[in-house]
Amino acid sequence: MKIENNMATDVKIAYIGGGSRGWAWGLMSDLASSEGISGDVYLYDIDLEAAKANEIIGNKYNDLPDAVSKWGYHAVETIDEALTGANFVVISILPGTFDEMESDVHAPEKYGIYQPVGDTTGPGGVVRALRTIPMFEVIAKAIEKNCPDAWVINYTNPMAICVNTLYKTFPGIKAFGCCHEVFGTQRLLATALEEATGIKAERDDITVNVVGVNHFTWLTSAQYRNIDLFPIYREFCEKHYDDDSGKAADDNWANKQWQTTNKVKKDLFLRYGVIAAAGDRHLAEFCEKEWYLKDVEMVEKKWNFGLTAVKWRKQDMEGRLAKSKRLISGEQAIELKKTGEEGVRQMKALLGLGDLVTNINLPNVGQIPNLPLGVVVETNAVFRADSATPVMAGAIPERIYPLIARNAGAQAGVVKAGVEKNIDLAFDAFCNDPLVDIPVADAKELFNEMIENTKKYLDMYEIK
Amino acid sequence: MKIENNMATDVKIAYIGGGSRGWAWGLMSDLASSEGISGDVYLYDIDLEAAKANEIIGNKYNDLPDAVSKWGYHAVETIDEALTGANFVVISILPGTFDEMESDVHAPEKYGIYQPVGDTTGPGGVVRALRTIPMFEVIAKAIEKNCPDAWVINYTNPMAICVNTLYKTFPGIKAFGCCHEVFGTQRLLATALEEATGIKAERDDITVNVVGVNHFTWLTSAQYRNIDLFPIYREFCEKHYDDDSGKAADDNWANKQWQTTNKVKKDLFLRYGVIAAAGDRHLAEFCEKEWYLKDVEMVEKKWNFGLTAVKWRKQDMEGRLAKSKRLISGEQAIELKKTGEEGVRQMKALLGLGDLVTNINLPNVGQIPNLPLGVVVETNAVFRADSATPVMAGAIPERIYPLIARNAGAQAGVVKAGVEKNIDLAFDAFCNDPLVDIPVADAKELFNEMIENTKKYLDMYEIK
Amino acid sequence: MKIENNMATDVKIAYIGGGSRGWAWGLMSDLASSEGISGDVYLYDIDLEAAKANEIIGNKYNDLPDAVSKWGYHAVETIDEALTGANFVVISILPGTFDEMESDVHAPEKYGIYQPVGDTTGPGGVVRALRTIPMFEVIAKAIEKNCPDAWVINYTNPMAICVNTLYKTFPGIKAFGCCHEVFGTQRLLATALEEATGIKAERDDITVNVVGVNHFTWLTSAQYRNIDLFPIYREFCEKHYDDDSGKAADDNWANKQWQTTNKVKKDLFLRYGVIAAAGDRHLAEFCEKEWYLKDVEMVEKKWNFGLTAVKWRKQDMEGRLAKSKRLISGEQAIELKKTGEEGVRQMKALLGLGDLVTNINLPNVGQIPNLPLGVVVETNAVFRADSATPVMAGAIPERIYPLIARNAGAQAGVVKAGVEKNIDLAFDAFCNDPLVDIPVADAKELFNEMIENTKKYLDMYEIK
Amino acid sequence: MKIENNMATDVKIAYIGGGSRGWAWGLMSDLASSEGISGDVYLYDIDLEAAKANEIIGNKYNDLPDAVSKWGYHAVETIDEALTGANFVVISILPGTFDEMESDVHAPEKYGIYQPVGDTTGPGGVVRALRTIPMFEVIAKAIEKNCPDAWVINYTNPMAICVNTLYKTFPGIKAFGCCHEVFGTQRLLATALEEATGIKAERDDITVNVVGVNHFTWLTSAQYRNIDLFPIYREFCEKHYDDDSGKAADDNWANKQWQTTNKVKKDLFLRYGVIAAAGDRHLAEFCEKEWYLKDVEMVEKKWNFGLTAVKWRKQDMEGRLAKSKRLISGEQAIELKKTGEEGVRQMKALLGLGDLVTNINLPNVGQIPNLPLGVVVETNAVFRADSATPVMAGAIPERIYPLIARNAGAQAGVVKAGVEKNIDLAFDAFCNDPLVDIPVADAKELFNEMIENTKKYLDMYEIK
Repeated sequence: MKIENNMATDVKIAYIGGGSRGWAWGLMSDLASSEGISGDVYLYDIDLEAAKANEIIGNKYNDLPDAVSKWGYHAVETIDEALTGANFVVISILPGTFDEMESDVHAPEKYGIYQPVGDTTGPGGVVRALRTIPMFEVIAKAIEKNCPDAWVINYTNPMAICVNTLYKTFPGIKAFGCCHEVFGTQRLLATALEEATGIKAERDDITVNVVGVNHFTWLTSAQYRNIDLFPIYREFCEKHYDDDSGKAADDNWANKQWQTTNKVKKDLFLRYGVIAAAGDRHLAEFCEKEWYLKDVEMVEKKWNFGLTAVKWRKQDMEGRLAKSKRLISGEQAIELKKTGEEGVRQMKALLGLGDLVTNINLPNVGQIPNLPLGVVVETNAVFRADSATPVMAGAIPERIYPLIARNAGAQAGVVKAGVEKNIDLAFDAFCNDPLVDIPVADAKELFNEMIENTKKYLDMYEIK
Repeated sequence: MKIENNMATDVKIAYIGGGSRGWAWGLMSDLASSEGISGDVYLYDIDLEAAKANEIIGNKYNDLPDAVSKWGYHAVETIDEALTGANFVVISILPGTFDEMESDVHAPEKYGIYQPVGDTTGPGGVVRALRTIPMFEVIAKAIEKNCPDAWVINYTNPMAICVNTLYKTFPGIKAFGCCHEVFGTQRLLATALEEATGIKAERDDITVNVVGVNHFTWLTSAQYRNIDLFPIYREFCEKHYDDDSGKAADDNWANKQWQTTNKVKKDLFLRYGVIAAAGDRHLAEFCEKEWYLKDVEMVEKKWNFGLTAVKWRKQDMEGRLAKSKRLISGEQAIELKKTGEEGVRQMKALLGLGDLVTNINLPNVGQIPNLPLGVVVETNAVFRADSATPVMAGAIPERIYPLIARNAGAQAGVVKAGVEKNIDLAFDAFCNDPLVDIPVADAKELFNEMIENTKKYLDMYEIK
Repeated sequence: MKIENNMATDVKIAYIGGGSRGWAWGLMSDLASSEGISGDVYLYDIDLEAAKANEIIGNKYNDLPDAVSKWGYHAVETIDEALTGANFVVISILPGTFDEMESDVHAPEKYGIYQPVGDTTGPGGVVRALRTIPMFEVIAKAIEKNCPDAWVINYTNPMAICVNTLYKTFPGIKAFGCCHEVFGTQRLLATALEEATGIKAERDDITVNVVGVNHFTWLTSAQYRNIDLFPIYREFCEKHYDDDSGKAADDNWANKQWQTTNKVKKDLFLRYGVIAAAGDRHLAEFCEKEWYLKDVEMVEKKWNFGLTAVKWRKQDMEGRLAKSKRLISGEQAIELKKTGEEGVRQMKALLGLGDLVTNINLPNVGQIPNLPLGVVVETNAVFRADSATPVMAGAIPERIYPLIARNAGAQAGVVKAGVEKNIDLAFDAFCNDPLVDIPVADAKELFNEMIENTKKYLDMYEIK
Repeated sequence: MKIENNMATDVKIAYIGGGSRGWAWGLMSDLASSEGISGDVYLYDIDLEAAKANEIIGNKYNDLPDAVSKWGYHAVETIDEALTGANFVVISILPGTFDEMESDVHAPEKYGIYQPVGDTTGPGGVVRALRTIPMFEVIAKAIEKNCPDAWVINYTNPMAICVNTLYKTFPGIKAFGCCHEVFGTQRLLATALEEATGIKAERDDITVNVVGVNHFTWLTSAQYRNIDLFPIYREFCEKHYDDDSGKAADDNWANKQWQTTNKVKKDLFLRYGVIAAAGDRHLAEFCEKEWYLKDVEMVEKKWNFGLTAVKWRKQDMEGRLAKSKRLISGEQAIELKKTGEEGVRQMKALLGLGDLVTNINLPNVGQIPNLPLGVVVETNAVFRADSATPVMAGAIPERIYPLIARNAGAQAGVVKAGVEKNIDLAFDAFCNDPLVDIPVADAKELFNEMIENTKKYLDMYEIK
């Protein structure tokens, strides 16, 4: 890699999960749109054919007239090949298949437990974590061996658990986790600002202080220039509690299919005076089941969001596979379309090409003083040449501390279960999860069933 | 007060709630039985007649042949009179009457929420706290004014909230809270030890490390001399999971009426590997409702304990009142009977008459590093001349951290509600309580009803 | 104040010490050169004539052809007038006169104690602090009364003590302290970089992690894009240990008169492996006297820097006064000349006109985990709309911890002395200062003399 | 080992340095005088003959009529033999010989640096540490291998560095360090108490809160029953500042040869309001050289203590060797004489035979919140069955924080030097030591000389 005249060339990116038909294309688009950085992307995937397809697609971006930056794409057969000499590692994998996810999300329904997403917390999140942690151990060890100085960006869920596993396995790793959920809340705040004042603000001109754990993030301040957005947002939430104003605000490429009216978000703000800052579908999963997820009717009628069926994901994937073929054949044209993700901006900042302040997931080293050290938290951080340093985000406000501490602690417990290959430890979190309000014996039955359903990926655990 | 030849004389104790027909008599008995300390007890109670009755009863102890120490008892009309010049202050009050407690405990039942005690946590604990906090603010201010150097021992529930309020109101106070629940667990461990080895151990020769919050206390080590009691207790719990071995172990004067088979305690140990160390009725209230308190049948059939109806408490009080009369008339003889409480031993240690190590409730100054500073926690402490210093109890073990952190945080939130006279803040804890697994709207309805039921004691709050 | 189209207008700045003939002119120049911000500056000074002179000078900047921003300057008679409605408060005062400073700096010389600056630490720093703290208490109270939401930028020394006093007096203040010393080290690193690689870097493209206390700041990392500057700087220090390469690097307007060869800086780096990042004259004052300040010969011959005599400062002030007159009369033309200070950039960032990451002085809330909470430390911070948040700078490296902890602790002690008006407490720091290596009795004699010399400003203390 | 009826039998003690002619005899005497504990002591020493001599002497104690407890003594040839199956390990070694100590103590004198002891801090302490750390690494590894569950009591200096090394080498070790210096201060407080009130108190009825590092320990409270000893001690110090009252108070068997008038102790209390609690000879070594150790005249004439020449130690050792022979031959009778040390009481408490609260040296896990975690500090701790738990000693008072933080930090630095076998790191502490007020070049020369003088024990370091 070289940097000259504000240009980084010969940058090497290793993409683990490089056969992805979503994130990968988004990254290709962002890379092609980014001035001042170019190089090569090595696509590694357990599905080599998928990686090869993406190699073809990726290279087509270079031919677009509006591509300001050229990148070579290379499908590789081994993770070592991808990682050797990498400056950046992007991890975006699907741990297991949608069949496992089907069990994660839907098996609990027979106990009245509904999960809108099921990939982060809740019973589905716990079981998903059990199969993900060993994969991340493999990845962390491979990074330690091949590119210990590379910066590692994780996009895989369960986010906090993945990042925690990387650090537990290779403490010297330079890794962090990224998520766009806070961005949606910034857009919603911009909507409220415009309604109140007529001012149109860019998403990232809404400056916020972030605390919490991924997908259960909260804002303790929100400001647009000299305007404190808290009173404005309060008025907005009160006025639009039941309607769908602000719906479009969260119109992110990644969650367009499952829009909400942000009612959970508004409700949590009105209850606690701190801004809940993730999508409603995620937020609801971290709360007591009776609050937002009592039953399907409550979800859809009262809180105006949907439960994402894994069947839908499977169909959606069919569509993506078809799109992949069309992109390769040329039947469908490649298009440049910025994702709003910050991955490439972060890379540039890490190369020293301009500071960036944004929210990421990192182990707690004191940035949130009232959570245990070592749990992975989401706060703002400063990106500069070869550093991503958390800011002092401050204590979790007293009113929401009970909500967050239990979830942060549970995630740490699941990591311990995974790292020690002790499946019983994971049951602690499973059984105490806010959504699992069933007797322990029932919880055990459900847990065992879900383990059985996904056992193909769990053979490193002793399952009694 | 004077101390000569290992004898403290002229000690002045102020007893707030001195009309009590239970704790007060226990203290009288313990004082009369304790060598090396004598003086006067000033009984203050909002029910002056009750205090006067106890004055008569108390003074009778001096005539017992086995009384080793003489104490003068004096009912006083004002709290200032009781406190002026006090060396020790004992607080043991009933906040409100059993009518309020009836609402606390039973109003939630119509929502399927059952509370075996209802004085510490759960919906009943929260509402009880709201009327208790203002009373403790009055007491703390009176202590600051009349006897700022006195040592203050609280026995009132909700324990952690009462102690926290004392410190919030008068930060220089020398106060702690005492509870005998851990002692019952020590007795249970002694039972297990005897069964395994034939060794008969005294309760306080079972040395333990205590962490947690009052009534949800846990032991991270338990030792009898050179014997680690964890494997012994594990075997005991596995063998006697369903039977009532150990029942007698917890045969404390204060909970004889409501014995359990310690099954919740055993269950929590087998699940978490850390020894839960309070009575089952208390422990269950801190856990997810579905675990131990789903319904009356589960409580009684599966977990073998009972729900203490406030009707029972009222009847029991009738009995106590009658006993008070008989004690005064001489119809019933006064008897010396050690309670097993440590109050008088603590007083002697605070006077420098011998060190004592025991568990008490104090604000967290770091003795439990992974809980927030300032929340009131229960750990061991060293009692010596004019000091009660917590030991470094260590972090809450990862497996039980989620259970404890949320409850410790909720209690801090309720104190904030009480101190700021902001009833809405208390609803946070109410609604997020492990027992309150009902939709927020229902929780609000219940909360409002309970507030209305007890409003006689809540006029310092603005109730909308 | 209004912000529209990236333009802040009607900004009100209160300048305490607004009669200054140095910093004030620098700020005028920076304000006139800064796009996107305009408004009024209210100059308050105990020397009203000086403020009036600066009013005239300041308003002349508006006539310069290259002034991109217009500011109205107003000398005011009271501090309240200056502060009312202020958005920003700049504090840059001389505590006392150069007569007091003469005592601070030179009285110790008869004991063989030489101070190159004498305004931060050392015997001079301690005594200066005693008269400064009461002044800052007055200022903090006036800010609390008149403009509690204003952002307060302090430039006065002793920096850490001034900032600490502001927070101790008005805990809700939004204040920080700024100092350009780190910038000089960034320039030196740029020089080393250029020598090693030919790359010319801007000062603020050298990104650094800052820890320590003001004027005894250290860099635990230094990076230019993908280049780690530590090996480069090591080579530079070894090669140029004795020569004056890099001299020009630190050619700041404010310290041009007292250039060094940075030999102390190089020496400290070679000894400790962490980059000392302040001017040699300051660094030396925080170290054991025998290291760099044993006697004048050592200072000048071995370490190649000079001791700034207060006589020189007095003469320099004559020159400044004359310049002031020439500027007013028009004899000398006003010139725009950027100072390199970051004050105006910080103001813009605080208004939400672009993020800024830079090093400032703030109370420790955990950004340096191994220093006590509350001491004022210098680290990087993020400036954004209405926030200046420290980053997690990390622990002071073990090798330099003993050097820094004692000085940070001493400064906190001096603040306590000043706030409690207990002059004896200040003697703790005085007597234990690294430069004061004389017997305690001699130290006491010297201390008393220095107090006597400056007693005009110390009448709030009881002096025995 | 067995415990029955409050009797521990078959206790196995491994004594590393078992050839000692001082500590060993004291321990023998204490063991023979202690009821309720008996067993065997395995004496390991690099001087096997010395261990054999002690075997003979030790076994003679069993014949004394007043011996209440019998112990078998066994000289062993290897450390493994001594440690296998040990319940307790006592470490009391001389690191190197008095020849090395002669260099430690006297080599610095040519630079005007005088050390009254030279075994803990100062230039002598640093160099002694360098040869001690590798020895303690060997011991810690042998303990991990042979008796990982044993309790380890260290008496060797430099205390904090030895204990720190044990934990760094084998983190699971159950080790602490003991020192009697605080006891002397308790005796002095008892003297002051008697003078003021006529009350005669036992040493351990003076209860104190201890903070600091070994040999630079301080008391933040001191109480005898209901009497606060601070005002009494203040009066005592003021009245007896210059005389030798209290001299006898510190008449410990171990320092009888080198009595002081406690003037340093009194002086530090009068200066700081916190009670310095070690012998004057130790305290002085941690302070700025000019305060108490400027030159021999100041030491002897002004501060009334002596510098212990190593020549004296050599002569004293001659005497001890002769005494050893006389004890073996029977020419001199064995006598029971309690030492006042607490080692055997601690062992009994660790076996669960009664609680004990006393001051020991342990790694900081938060018991002193404003010192870094991991540095070894001296505070009170609770001894109970299989546990020695520090109490929350509280923050180092602000006034003495600068004195203690630098020394605690320096000791941690020396441990790092020893563990990493990097002799240069030790020079940081050497050069910055409060006693080493000489230019760095001179300090380097001295350091090199001292290393050369003791190099026989330093061959694991690379010495340039």
